Amino acid sequence: MVRKNKKITAAILIIGNEILSGRTKDQNVSYLASWLNNNLGIKTEEVRIIPDIEKTIIKNISTLRKKYNYVFTTGGIGPTHDDITAKSTSKALKVKYNYNREAFNILEKYYGKKNFNSGRKKMAKMPSGSKLIYNPSSIAPGFIIKNIICLPGIPSIIKSMIDNLKNYLKSGSKTYSLTINMITVESKIAKELSVIQKKYKKFVDIGSYPFFRLEKIGVSVVSRSTSKMKLESVNRDLIKLVRLKKIEILKI
Amino acid sequence: MVRKNKKITAAILIIGNEILSGRTKDQNVSYLASWLNNNLGIKTEEVRIIPDIEKTIIKNISTLRKKYNYVFTTGGIGPTHDDITAKSTSKALKVKYNYNREAFNILEKYYGKKNFNSGRKKMAKMPSGSKLIYNPSSIAPGFIIKNIICLPGIPSIIKSMIDNLKNYLKSGSKTYSLTINMITVESKIAKELSVIQKKYKKFVDIGSYPFFRLEKIGVSVVSRSTSKMKLESVNRDLIKLVRLKKIEILKI
Repeated sequence: MVRKNKKITAAILIIGNEILSGRTKDQNVSYLASWLNNNLGIKTEEVRIIPDIEKTIIKNISTLRKKYNYVFTTGGIGPTHDDITAKSTSKALKVKYNYNREAFNILEKYYGKKNFNSGRKKMAKMPSGSKLIYNPSSIAPGFIIKNIICLPGIPSIIKSMIDNLKNYLKSGSKTYSLTINMITVESKIAKELSVIQKKYKKFVDIGSYPFFRLEKIGVSVVSRSTSKMKLESVNRDLIKLVRLKKIEILKI
Repeated sequence: MVRKNKKITAAILIIGNEILSGRTKDQNVSYLASWLNNNLGIKTEEVRIIPDIEKTIIKNISTLRKKYNYVFTTGGIGPTHDDITAKSTSKALKVKYNYNREAFNILEKYYGKKNFNSGRKKMAKMPSGSKLIYNPSSIAPGFIIKNIICLPGIPSIIKSMIDNLKNYLKSGSKTYSLTINMITVESKIAKELSVIQKKYKKFVDIGSYPFFRLEKIGVSVVSRSTSKMKLESVNRDLIKLVRLKKIEILKI
């Protein structure tokens, strides 16, 4: 029986002037994309980085949530004036933006009634109907509403809360990958790679990425597929190519 | 005399499955965004990361080039089958995709007639009318056509060729930034920051970013403006806030 390939897609929307200005290097895209694929077989098909501007956030959420199964946002759910993701998400979905009772209670208990000021209370305001994604690191929860998942911007906090996400998401077919690091240059294998890619067109994506490592120049040939069997076939063809061209393989 | 604020905007389009899969961490966004602002006063307003799919590339180039003064693409201009940026750009602009004579000559001279194979020749194919961006590192040039600038994906190669870009681009007003690292938490300053942001609404963007550094928890308050004078005013207000709240400043 052929197992059906179930494709579940995602977009990542990085919200934050600090990434866009170049001041802060994003670390969330590679972490989230890898985690989603490895744990749930969800394929990230697009990433956008946008500024903290309400109408821009609304427009992007609206566009992306129609194109992909899930939209993961990072950033903009803290206590300050530039944290406008929750409010913008409410507007994009045309639902109310108000206190989530559970989040309010969690935060009030953590800070204590006396220290539960307006900034901290703001972190309990969410699109009406949101479910919480608990945050063991800095307490203020993320949330999921329809197919939008709003996470904080700080990488270590995302990592601490991500396992709480699993139960909310449908899983798809995991993409497996296989890398062969060849000590060669791209132009020496371009023609043959192209032939192999054509042969497996519908099943395997073959990418070729030059590298400079351990004082050697080489090419990482990365094959990706939801079928392990097809990957093994591609691997056999690539090994044939390596032998034919007498290319050294770098094992790292 | 008040100097007029000249806004020049850009989008960065990262083309490559390897970034989207999480395998490779992007390094080009922060480098390009910083370089564009610091050297030319060009403000990056959007970033997208998309896969190596022709119709996706065409659609994104077409959309972004209308919204921003410039679109910088990275990746997909090498010799292999997954390098389809030049061809896709030609289609987006509805211009011919053929050999650029100058690029052809540069590459032929470098590789020698005998070794100038089809993969290497492919790197001379560009949208008709392209101007070259010379590449001292790995020779194969990038190119500029209309308001689209196509660069390779490898960060070290981009760095080696970027100075050759300056003459092709209009420059705008540089955005200056000023950072105060406060040993506090966001919720303790949220209200006051919001008041200061409102006061300078049209002139300065104030962002607040929590950090954990040198075993201290703090908040980097980053103000950005094209006006140094306005930045100094914001700075005075922030210093007042720091004194009022008896907040320690971390000088790093």
